[in-house]
Amino acid sequence: MTNTQFISKADAYKRPLKKRAVKPARFVEIYRDEEAFQGVAVRELGDITPVTLMSGDSVILDFGGHCVGYPSLDLHCVGDNISDSPTRLKLSFAEFPLELYARHGEYNGLLGNGWLQYEEKTAVFTPCTLRVDRRYSFRYMKIERVDNAPYPMVVESFNAECVSAVELDSVEKYIAPDERLQRIYDVSLKTLAECEQEVFEDGPKRDRRLWIGDLRLQAITDYVTFKNLDLIKRCIYLFAGYLNSKGEVAPCVYPDCPPYRLEWTFADYSMFLCSCIYDYYKATGDRTLADELYGVAFNQLEMVSSRIEADLQATADGTFIDWCPSLDKSVALLGVYAYCLGQLNEIRADEWLEAEIKKTHARLRGFLKDGVLVTPLGQVSQHSQVWGALSGAFDREECRRLLEELDTLDTEYTFRTPYARHYYIEALVSAGLEDKALSFIRDFWGMILDAGFDTCPEIFNPDNQFESPYEAPEINSACHAWSCTPAYWIKRLCKEE
Amino acid sequence: MTNTQFISKADAYKRPLKKRAVKPARFVEIYRDEEAFQGVAVRELGDITPVTLMSGDSVILDFGGHCVGYPSLDLHCVGDNISDSPTRLKLSFAEFPLELYARHGEYNGLLGNGWLQYEEKTAVFTPCTLRVDRRYSFRYMKIERVDNAPYPMVVESFNAECVSAVELDSVEKYIAPDERLQRIYDVSLKTLAECEQEVFEDGPKRDRRLWIGDLRLQAITDYVTFKNLDLIKRCIYLFAGYLNSKGEVAPCVYPDCPPYRLEWTFADYSMFLCSCIYDYYKATGDRTLADELYGVAFNQLEMVSSRIEADLQATADGTFIDWCPSLDKSVALLGVYAYCLGQLNEIRADEWLEAEIKKTHARLRGFLKDGVLVTPLGQVSQHSQVWGALSGAFDREECRRLLEELDTLDTEYTFRTPYARHYYIEALVSAGLEDKALSFIRDFWGMILDAGFDTCPEIFNPDNQFESPYEAPEINSACHAWSCTPAYWIKRLCKEE
Repeated sequence: MTNTQFISKADAYKRPLKKRAVKPARFVEIYRDEEAFQGVAVRELGDITPVTLMSGDSVILDFGGHCVGYPSLDLHCVGDNISDSPTRLKLSFAEFPLELYARHGEYNGLLGNGWLQYEEKTAVFTPCTLRVDRRYSFRYMKIERVDNAPYPMVVESFNAECVSAVELDSVEKYIAPDERLQRIYDVSLKTLAECEQEVFEDGPKRDRRLWIGDLRLQAITDYVTFKNLDLIKRCIYLFAGYLNSKGEVAPCVYPDCPPYRLEWTFADYSMFLCSCIYDYYKATGDRTLADELYGVAFNQLEMVSSRIEADLQATADGTFIDWCPSLDKSVALLGVYAYCLGQLNEIRADEWLEAEIKKTHARLRGFLKDGVLVTPLGQVSQHSQVWGALSGAFDREECRRLLEELDTLDTEYTFRTPYARHYYIEALVSAGLEDKALSFIRDFWGMILDAGFDTCPEIFNPDNQFESPYEAPEINSACHAWSCTPAYWIKRLCKEE
Repeated sequence: MTNTQFISKADAYKRPLKKRAVKPARFVEIYRDEEAFQGVAVRELGDITPVTLMSGDSVILDFGGHCVGYPSLDLHCVGDNISDSPTRLKLSFAEFPLELYARHGEYNGLLGNGWLQYEEKTAVFTPCTLRVDRRYSFRYMKIERVDNAPYPMVVESFNAECVSAVELDSVEKYIAPDERLQRIYDVSLKTLAECEQEVFEDGPKRDRRLWIGDLRLQAITDYVTFKNLDLIKRCIYLFAGYLNSKGEVAPCVYPDCPPYRLEWTFADYSMFLCSCIYDYYKATGDRTLADELYGVAFNQLEMVSSRIEADLQATADGTFIDWCPSLDKSVALLGVYAYCLGQLNEIRADEWLEAEIKKTHARLRGFLKDGVLVTPLGQVSQHSQVWGALSGAFDREECRRLLEELDTLDTEYTFRTPYARHYYIEALVSAGLEDKALSFIRDFWGMILDAGFDTCPEIFNPDNQFESPYEAPEINSACHAWSCTPAYWIKRLCKEE
């Protein structure tokens, strides 16, 4: 179900990317070190200079920070020598050390190995510039000479053309109350910038896609930083324009890849169209977009309502909420439902919305046992407490009770993604527990910094450094949109110094 | 020793390449067949249609004839499916079946493996067009899906942008006396067209270089076919402009690769600058170029003269003549020397030239024993007879005696390259043995056709199909400039029907 008018608007908001020339900062080596994060450490080797490569030689560049773009190398032969045969270089890219340390041939993850970041380039004549045409996401780049010719080849200079929809330098400087929070803020903001491309991508390395769950978090952070309203509108229109055959908002749309949307849905993600237009209205004061898409958003809630009526558990199984195996998501789903009902009703009040809110609140209250929400399957999960607290079904005291002991709750159903942790923070803040929220950010994102990341990863488990939803930590994304909201929270919770 | 004036002229004669869109003719398979040339045969599989590739699948395209250029593929995902991860394709190119049949990883030749014609390309999003940026020389192209994602990928269309300095279609049609000669003519002309690029390349697959020995043969063929005088002048100026530090003409120059010329020389190749300007003068009637470069050409002969005086054998060791191991090239060198002296003297008579001709003729006559030329090391080679016959030292009857039994001479020192065979044909024709020349062309190049080539190869030995100067027949060039002169000879020797 394609709304061509919305798609035209999405197209009209497309802007050229901003390009930035970046030079590597230093040569490094990457080596096994049991003490280091994921057992792999980086050692500085020295300043960047032209380097002579013989067959089998390699160097590793550290660009000094996360890059998204197109590296290039200037090559020439040495002195009087003219190479008798072409030079073949294997170029490998990595956001984090393990990604470069793991062998491509031994990758055995659940995602296709096409995501592995490497390619070979051949230089037939020199001097020449080798430029990759696949966009890579990297801080480290390994250059390995893989042809067997006995001629030296000089890499004279190393460059990268980096791309983003926004410029970090052009955003108003924010001074955090302390260095730790400043660093978390900066790394979050950098993460957002790297993910802003022709759409808000979930991660620039992988999957490079516009997911509505990520979009919403990117947008709220962007409103208070880059203020890239055009890109936000573009992405919201894409979701409203490319509905699936039932009229549902897809979890993910591809602006240039037919059939443009996934046919399957996540119920929570479909409903988040309400949050997207609500946030836009709240951030800008402009209700045009919210008015225009109110009907599409309303439909999402109606459809989820029918599905919940028919089978709550089945509908809950078809939500995202978090990557937590065997999680009973039914309470969380009702929480998201009530949350989105409330937002849409705030845009424009409606009798059906109000009735549904009332009904859903009552239903949610039915799951409260001794101050804790217990799902129909008897689970006490962190997720149920968070979405209960965000649902509007409970008063501030009840919410605080749901949240205050949540981090020590005796349950295996805990937050697995920074995405889920964002809603925990939102719940804390909405219950007036700002200090706890800030200290949670400081602890969790602080551990991310301590692990050596300079952007926020897709997944981070301090108790299992090798955790990967794909059974291969090297394919994890180290720069992932849904982890970028500390920039939003810090700015909101801390008075600027 | 760079003459910037000549280099500027060479640059000024550079013209844009002509581009031609080419579609593959059919799908084929390549399989082991002991009866076939090099033990590998091609079987037609059917017309070109869009093809769906799963992980591990491959197809082979036959473009129906030799191509030099940049293939591209249009890809898209099937139906409702959106690929979850990038598609990686290995693209392999081959001028002849063995090149595609041999495994890249098992290559063990003397030349660098950077010449192997393959690369991998990744498509992150579809639909997309994958275009290679390395220029390939091929008739066959294999497309192999090497990522492991379980999604079908459709290659919707297959294209190649082919490049050449000339257009086969624009050359005046020549009708040969019979079908066999017509086919040899066509294949030779196609070979020349494929090698005419930004310079006259020796071979478009490898080494893609301007060698003066090849240039001379390309030019004489071009004068009577494409008449691409600008490219001929460009290449002659490049040789005159980029002399080595002693002022010698290099065997090979690279217009865009410092230090632009090889420092080492072949004495015969240095002297061929005389032939190049002589041929230009003869073909066009315009003596401007010959006059302008007369001095440079004269110097080449003077320098070779001194070297011959000092040490004939050492100078002969530093000639090309042919790829014939242990060949004593001293008589052949004197033949080339006399031949070039004569050409320069014909451009403009000179006392020293005349004296040298006389002296060299006398010296050559001294090697004649019982009607056959025997080298100082006692060798009776095909090469000595040919260059003796071309030297001008012998009368027609003596030349005929040198040549008539040459093909049955009891010697291991036989022609190894089509290049050496060209001068055999020239010697036959200059001795009035046109019929023998034509029948030699018909036999030798006829065997090339029968082996399945549709361009003329660098090397062809009917007694050893796997002969390779590089100890790896798959790296041989199947389209090589120095084999293209049958088009010149057929046109010269056969009255058009």
